[in-house]
Order: sequence, then C-alpha cells, then structure tokens
Amino acid sequence: MTAQTDHNPANANAQSTGRTLISVDAMGGDEGPAAVVAGCSLSAKINPDIAFVLHGDAAVLETLVTKTPALAGICEIRHASDIVTMDDKPSQVVRTGKDTSMWSAIESVRTREAAVAVSCGNTGALMALSMIRLRKLEGVNRPAIAVLYPSANPQGFNVMLDVGADIRADADDLMRFALMGISYARNGMDIKRPRVGLLNVGTEEHKGRTELKEAYDLIRAQEAGAGFDFVGFVEGGDISGDVADVIVTDGFTGNVAIKTGEGTANLVGRRLREAFGYSLWSRIASALAYTSLQRLKMKIDPRRVNGGVFLGLNGTVVKSHGSADATGVSAAIKLAAQLSQSQFNDKLAARVAATLPVEDKSE
Amino acid sequence: MTAQTDHNPANANAQSTGRTLISVDAMGGDEGPAAVVAGCSLSAKINPDIAFVLHGDAAVLETLVTKTPALAGICEIRHASDIVTMDDKPSQVVRTGKDTSMWSAIESVRTREAAVAVSCGNTGALMALSMIRLRKLEGVNRPAIAVLYPSANPQGFNVMLDVGADIRADADDLMRFALMGISYARNGMDIKRPRVGLLNVGTEEHKGRTELKEAYDLIRAQEAGAGFDFVGFVEGGDISGDVADVIVTDGFTGNVAIKTGEGTANLVGRRLREAFGYSLWSRIASALAYTSLQRLKMKIDPRRVNGGVFLGLNGTVVKSHGSADATGVSAAIKLAAQLSQSQFNDKLAARVAATLPVEDKSE
Repeated sequence: MTAQTDHNPANANAQSTGRTLISVDAMGGDEGPAAVVAGCSLSAKINPDIAFVLHGDAAVLETLVTKTPALAGICEIRHASDIVTMDDKPSQVVRTGKDTSMWSAIESVRTREAAVAVSCGNTGALMALSMIRLRKLEGVNRPAIAVLYPSANPQGFNVMLDVGADIRADADDLMRFALMGISYARNGMDIKRPRVGLLNVGTEEHKGRTELKEAYDLIRAQEAGAGFDFVGFVEGGDISGDVADVIVTDGFTGNVAIKTGEGTANLVGRRLREAFGYSLWSRIASALAYTSLQRLKMKIDPRRVNGGVFLGLNGTVVKSHGSADATGVSAAIKLAAQLSQSQFNDKLAARVAATLPVEDKSE
Repeated sequence: MTAQTDHNPANANAQSTGRTLISVDAMGGDEGPAAVVAGCSLSAKINPDIAFVLHGDAAVLETLVTKTPALAGICEIRHASDIVTMDDKPSQVVRTGKDTSMWSAIESVRTREAAVAVSCGNTGALMALSMIRLRKLEGVNRPAIAVLYPSANPQGFNVMLDVGADIRADADDLMRFALMGISYARNGMDIKRPRVGLLNVGTEEHKGRTELKEAYDLIRAQEAGAGFDFVGFVEGGDISGDVADVIVTDGFTGNVAIKTGEGTANLVGRRLREAFGYSLWSRIASALAYTSLQRLKMKIDPRRVNGGVFLGLNGTVVKSHGSADATGVSAAIKLAAQLSQSQFNDKLAARVAATLPVEDKSE
C-alpha cells in the first residue's frame, strides 16, 4: 500500500490536467508496438479527455511517439525491458515477469495511478497477473471476463460473462456475475435498467443443471429494488437476441459459445464473398453493393467492440484482441476511458460487496 | 418381442418391393400433416428406393395422400387418434401417449418393420419415448443427439454430438459419443476416415475440466487401427471449421453452442438484408446479386441439413425441426433413408459394443 501513496502525485497530475490516465501495455500484441501507438493516436484524436502511460521498451516507444503528433504532451513512457509472449505460461509469468511491460501496466492500476489498464497480450498471463497483483474485490470468489456480443438489441450489443476467466462457476458465482454484468451494462453501455438472463438449454424453470436452478433463485432474490430485471433462463440464440442485455454463464460454456458464434459469422462471411465472386453479374452487384456491405461490416466488425473486461478485481483490466490493429486498440481504449470516467470499478465494488438487496440500491 | 414377429410380414413386404421403409410421424410438426406429406412426396420423386408408413389421423392422411400422385402405392397409413403437442411434458407422454402418432411411429422401429423413424414433434417427448420403447444399445450409458453443422470442410458440414439428449456426460460417455459420431460420419456422410475433435476452451492438453482430460486419453486409446484420427482438443470456432469432421461435447455445451451459432447467423442475415435495403443503389445491387445470394442461401440453409439423429438406441430416430416445411421434411427423410440403407445402426452397435480397439475394426 506504500506504493499507492508514492504514485499519487502522478494521479493528481493526470487529474490536474483534467485528463483520464489510461495505462497501456504497448508491447503485447501480435502487431507490435506500432499498432498500439497508432491506436492511442486514433483515440486521442477523438477523445480530448484522455492521457496515456505507455509501458515497454523506452527507445522503441520514444521513436514511435515522437512521430505521432496527436500524442504530444499526453503520453508518458515507462520503460520495461521484458515482454510476455503468447506462448509464455501464466504461472511462469507470475514468478519471473517483474520486468515485463504487462506487469508494469498492471502496476499502474495497482498503485491507482490509472483506473484501467489495456493490453493486447497473452490472456492467461494477463488474468493471472491481474489476480495476483490487483487481488479480488471483497465479495468476489471468482473474477470474470465480460465481452460485448453483437445483438439485435437497440444498443447493438449484449454483455456476456464469464467467457473464460475460469472454467467453473457455482450458483453464488453466477449470481455475482449477474451483479457485475449489470454494473458493466450500466456504466459501460449506458443501459439504465439492464435485463439479465441466465444461460441454459431451455427457458423452463425445471430445466438444466442443479447450480443453474440455485443461481436462478439467488438472482431472483437480488432483483427487488436493485434496478434490473431478471428475465430468467435464456438459450444460446438469445446471446445475439433482444430479450436480455446481460447474459450470465460459466467460463467454459461462455468461451465455447463466443468462439462458436465468431466462427459461424466468419463462415457466413466467407460464403458471402464466394457467392459474390462467382459470376460477372455477381461481381458487378458486389461493386454496386460496396457501400452497403461496408455498412454491414461496420455493424458486425469485431474490431469495433474489441475488449474483454476483467471484472471483480481492485481495478479494471481491458484485454484487447491479440491481433488488434490500430482500430481495434482504439476501441479497447475507448471502452477503458468510459469505464474509468464513470468510476465503474468503485460502483461495481459497492454493488458486489452488498449482499442484501436493500444495500444493493447504493449503486 | 412377440410384436416384432407379428410385424415381420410387413418388413418382408417392404423388402420384397426392394424399397426401404421409413416410419413417419405425420402429425408432429408446427406446419401440420400437409407439410409432412408434401415432404414425403418431394423425397419419393427423387428417391425411387423408398416407401413410407405414415402414422396419424387416417381420415386426414388418406385425403392428403390421395391427392399426391408421387405417393401412390408406396405409402401405408397407420391410424393414431392422438397427437403429442409441443407443450406436452415428456414424462406425461411416456405414461399416457400410447395412442399418439409419435408412439406409433417409434413402434414401427421397435418391431423392426422400419429401421428409421422421422418426426417433427416435441424433442423431449420424442427422446423420452425413444429411450423407453427402443432401449439403449449394449455399451451405451447415455444416448446422444447428433446434428450436421455447416462447416468449411469439403463435405460442407461437421457432425456434432451431443446437442441436448442429456445435460451431463462423463469421460466414458464422451468416448462413446466419439465412436457413435465416427459411425455416423462414415455412414451418413461417406467420410472414410473421420477426424474427431473434443470440444474444450483451448487446444493445449493441460486445459479444461477433469472429465475432458480423461476423455482425451480414452479416445486416444481407441484410435489405433480403428479407422479414425483423433485431432485432440478443439475450440468453439472449429465447430464450423476444417480441422475435424466430428465434434464431441456434452449435451449442455453442445446445445448452447448450436443455438448460439444459429442465432449469430440469423443476426448476420438480418443485418445483410438491412444493408441491402438501405439505398437505391444497394437495392439495385441486391437485385443483381439475387442469384448469388440464393446460392449462398442454398449453402447455409438450415432446412437442407434438417435432422438431429438420436444415436445409441436399438433403432434410429431422426428429429426434424418442428417448423420444417416440405423441403425440411424431405431433407430429414433423405438422411433417414441413407442411414437405413447403409445399415447404420447395426454398424454403430458393433462399434460401440466393442470395447477393445482391436474389435473396433469390425465396423
């Protein structure tokens, strides 16, 4: 806790300039630091309220930042000599990763210099480091990773969690996932009264595993006066549907589901390109439809909702896709900024710590 | 077993005409018996080797069949006065459903009059009735429902099981799902040497739940000389991918995954229609692209791969989608005919009964 005090001047500094400081692991992604710096630049151009602390090889980052006018005066570089690779084992990183850019980026959140860290790196290592360094929030047994999934709802996306922080979840964990997801939907997506669904193989109350029936009752018990609606059990088709804004499930099922959905969307896209490439007429049609297809791509482009959020820790960590380009990194930063500016993590902590419905109203 | 002998003359009769007899529950679907009879007619026009026994209200069915030239002389009607509705509870149907068309359709398989039954009815009731009346194959603890899922593989589809016969599966069940899936891929899809993948949240051997690691070893132990390749763990994205032909998982995960994929594909289709309807140019493009889009629809139309197959029973039951139209019913009948003509269930029984890799070669 001493370190926290040490860094407070920096925090005060960011606040005095009126900007939200975002901690960025600049070395983690497949595309290298150039893509990360380009993403920061894109974000800075559209959001005048943010500043960055970039973690990584100082020589490399200084060269990149110097060439980027949008980052002038709002970007501090913090040297880290080592990098976590995609093949590194989480347990190994926790033991020997002190000099990595990922460790350093999380450290900025631990010391409260920044409220949110962003990394494109190794998910397992990022989760393990976040758990060990930030520690779990009071009242949280299992942290969760939440993603935004394209949906038929007006906001265009649903919150889904857990998608792979842990492969297990008991009834109590699922109830807390619901509370964390509600906080996220409210603060990350501006949904005033989120509708929550519990993922199952049918919508009838008698269906599914024992822990799901227990979780059903636990979530129902939290509902009164807590500012959300529990719509009960939902099915796989509802993840992209419009009956709920928050979909709650265990990390095994959630991980399989989002990867299945992503794979299926890719297959449809591939078949669509084949169909349009088939004949002269279809190629002309494809040219005419270019704007429409671009519009479609905008709506379902996974890069535009890039960012899994680790929930349930003392501080927020946004995991950007490993293969994210500047657009993807920028989307993750936008999300990080919004969560930071809404004091999301404090509200989430208050909500989860409160075990009685009455206290739950505090958020 | 006496009933079996009673019905043998009918069986001999179907065989003497050189046609494969398919038992059809004509009353089960949302679209009513007219859609089912139209589906039988479509099938009869393209397959000269099949005949039907239609179960349901004799007066209704006789009127429909009389108006259908393609069914003349190849369609026996067996009266059943009652219908299983979509809301009926499986346990109730098992106790009091003796006079339903679904019960009667399964009875034709139980007596070996037909090798395969087709129904568009209530899935839970169909599974419960099939379990009770047909009983499990020797060596099978949990039967499974297998579906064909659109994929990037040359055959265009992968076999996936279980997608919801049971919400549980232990390591031994998963190994037997693999064997049943292999038999299905070979006899239903003509894949000589199926590649099998076990669904998990990562492809590394150390990942996932305990029963998955155990199942990994059990499937590996079956591999030698048994005519399939075990590709190890696969992820959600591989369900529509090209690394495996058979995807093995428990019924909870499988059910969520296929519904997620279906929902996502529907959302993409909806967004695509919106994109094409947006401007005058995009509408012209849409008209020009009509043939291409129809071609796409053909490739990913779920009606064309309609039919979940119940595996692991003494006889095969094909569950057609409840909302299937004539095209959908016809696809389910085509699948039923192929499985029946390849003596699929006898081969599957031999494979599953054999617990030693050496005996597995028998199929």
